[in-house]
Amino acid sequence: MIQPLKSIEPTGDIAATLRNLGREARAAARTLALAPTEQKNRALTAMAHAVRTNSDAILAANAEDIADAKAAGTAASLIDRLRLDDKRIESIAEGIEVVRDLPDPVGTVMESWTRPNGMTIERVRVPLGVIGVIYESRPNVTADAGSLCLKAGNAVILRGGSDSHRSARAIHAALAEGLRAAGLPEAAISLVPTRDRAAVGMMLTGLDGDIDVIVPRGGKGLVARVQAEARVPVFAHLEGVCHVFVDKAADLDMAKSIVLNAKMRRTGVCGAAETLLVDRAAMATHLRPLIAMLLDAGCEVRGDADVRAVGARVKPASEADWGTEYLDAVIAAKVVDGIDAAIAHIERYGSHHTDAIITADAKAAEKFLAEVDSAIVLHNASTQFADGGEFGFGSEIGIATGRMHARGPVGAEQLCTFKYRVRGAGQIRP
Amino acid sequence: MIQPLKSIEPTGDIAATLRNLGREARAAARTLALAPTEQKNRALTAMAHAVRTNSDAILAANAEDIADAKAAGTAASLIDRLRLDDKRIESIAEGIEVVRDLPDPVGTVMESWTRPNGMTIERVRVPLGVIGVIYESRPNVTADAGSLCLKAGNAVILRGGSDSHRSARAIHAALAEGLRAAGLPEAAISLVPTRDRAAVGMMLTGLDGDIDVIVPRGGKGLVARVQAEARVPVFAHLEGVCHVFVDKAADLDMAKSIVLNAKMRRTGVCGAAETLLVDRAAMATHLRPLIAMLLDAGCEVRGDADVRAVGARVKPASEADWGTEYLDAVIAAKVVDGIDAAIAHIERYGSHHTDAIITADAKAAEKFLAEVDSAIVLHNASTQFADGGEFGFGSEIGIATGRMHARGPVGAEQLCTFKYRVRGAGQIRP
Repeated sequence: MIQPLKSIEPTGDIAATLRNLGREARAAARTLALAPTEQKNRALTAMAHAVRTNSDAILAANAEDIADAKAAGTAASLIDRLRLDDKRIESIAEGIEVVRDLPDPVGTVMESWTRPNGMTIERVRVPLGVIGVIYESRPNVTADAGSLCLKAGNAVILRGGSDSHRSARAIHAALAEGLRAAGLPEAAISLVPTRDRAAVGMMLTGLDGDIDVIVPRGGKGLVARVQAEARVPVFAHLEGVCHVFVDKAADLDMAKSIVLNAKMRRTGVCGAAETLLVDRAAMATHLRPLIAMLLDAGCEVRGDADVRAVGARVKPASEADWGTEYLDAVIAAKVVDGIDAAIAHIERYGSHHTDAIITADAKAAEKFLAEVDSAIVLHNASTQFADGGEFGFGSEIGIATGRMHARGPVGAEQLCTFKYRVRGAGQIRP
Repeated sequence: MIQPLKSIEPTGDIAATLRNLGREARAAARTLALAPTEQKNRALTAMAHAVRTNSDAILAANAEDIADAKAAGTAASLIDRLRLDDKRIESIAEGIEVVRDLPDPVGTVMESWTRPNGMTIERVRVPLGVIGVIYESRPNVTADAGSLCLKAGNAVILRGGSDSHRSARAIHAALAEGLRAAGLPEAAISLVPTRDRAAVGMMLTGLDGDIDVIVPRGGKGLVARVQAEARVPVFAHLEGVCHVFVDKAADLDMAKSIVLNAKMRRTGVCGAAETLLVDRAAMATHLRPLIAMLLDAGCEVRGDADVRAVGARVKPASEADWGTEYLDAVIAAKVVDGIDAAIAHIERYGSHHTDAIITADAKAAEKFLAEVDSAIVLHNASTQFADGGEFGFGSEIGIATGRMHARGPVGAEQLCTFKYRVRGAGQIRP
């Protein structure tokens, strides 16, 4: 079953290189789909070990990437994303072990039932096939995505950012070592060996049917390009324009705690709140304390006329603010005429990612949870829980706002499809 | 919530007509997603009633379609597909009632769990949105697809065959009557009002995001075009090259019964067996009786050298036969060297639709069920069970061989997606 990975080096014919990568990944996917849990876990253990024992080589490769990036005048924030150190390498290794310790989704019986004629039917999880992951400068994605796809029995073709290509190669070499140690095909996790951007375009076409789904990991520019150009399904979210609606029946202390957390815990994550909606019926009691709290916490508030009436520190919101994902210490704030207006606002301006209501009124909560058409809807909890780890998935490859197949955090289960196993005793159809 | 459907007539500007249809369907989808089960069921009851009370009008429209088809020299088999009579109209009405009596998938909690911080998370079924259905001459698809999409809370845009457009319009008018009677938007089920084929191309682009998934219902030409050109997800199968593998441990009587049923019960369905594989170890005992039975039943057998050795009535199989979906009383037959060779043959030539093993050996059965990568794999049962009704889904919109979202029979549940409902008591993320 073991297929050694032929050394693939850029030859100038990128198309041939990529097609070959696709074919090898497809063949490896068949082996992986049938690999026992124990063998996959053995590979993951060996991968984590190899990341640790090769940390010097990984750091040396990373130092070269950083030197290049500095020479190219790359912004400090990007260089920070790119930078590895002992702590980050340990966290990469630990992340692989977390994935190893997840339950194996492959083979799980999702449902089973018996037909009147005695046949039993089972719906059982099986791997999706070959996942293409296109990412930017964070080299840890190499291991995170590689290990999660492996756990779910999928082959993966990784295309990292050109800034971090040496780091990604060094990490990938450690993953390959782990695959070899467990007797799994190295093509289970392959890294596109060229920095040529044409490779991305080829992956988006699906490599003649050899990529089943694309997962972009990176900024809006990357995600938008992938969503616009991909000819295969994409698991992604373009942006998280997340709302917190403070209902008239909201407890003020709870509202303050959740709004502060939803906006300010980490402003750069996709589950960070970007718009605060306050019920007009709670305006007299709730609006000023909420806005003052945000301003005091160093958050810029852009408000409608009602919110601006709170004080001069509130800046005016323009129409564009209602649809903006700031990913920064900025929030748009608006007073709405009750829950229906709040839901209508979210449907109009939101991104169907994650939205929350704060209320002590169970009926209002159920209405919000039913009517807001987002991947994640919350009652009395922070939008920053929009995360596979916080959902208990152990690890995620991203969050999807599409409606097909995967929605919300994409964990190992969502990287699977299913098939029907039917067991009979000679049944024929009348 | 009720939005009356504006009368849409072809104006020459088909693009504008279709875009308008898409926008109205999208708006209707929002209403339908929140419609209570009782209201949807009331509409379905009224739709069935309207089909029955309007049977004269439907038959008159159908007579015109048939007259046109005859005048155009249409083949008798196609005219039969097109033809309605009292019995077929009653069966259309009954089909709507079957859908009405299915459980409502919308709102079903698929999974729920509690996090260590006390938050509860539910994964709950919600409708997909807007389904585009493109079909050919069978006018009953208008009601079958319309009712199933409605049950799952989706809006549907139907594009029927031009041969059957008057019949489809008459049935659609009855469905619209049912929607009105229940106070649901007529745009919940719309019929493309033009026979212009350009409408199909526009639907395949997704109508500016207003179609979420396309379901083609018809022959290979239609399905192949939809799969090649669609820019939105497609639920379909191009063909069902289904196999029956008779293992060395197969009971001969059971093998005969299942092979005969799988091939000959109805030869024109996608779950009909197209290839018989017989284990070489069972050749001496099983091959001749199986082949003789098929020949005696009027089935043409195209065999490899081993099968041809059975007798002169067996025709030679060419390489092309192994991948052919005959949809007729013809079967390809081959002797294979054990279960691994059978699985390898199926993976190479099959269409990942439905494949069966006949064996009394539980270990061989489990191996086959695990390793054959098809939507449906069966042990000791006929491939003709590949059908949503036979699975207990009540109704299906088709069978999918893709790996994303839906696989196998596509029933009301598969026409749904899900979202996460999170309930807290003030939780914030640390």
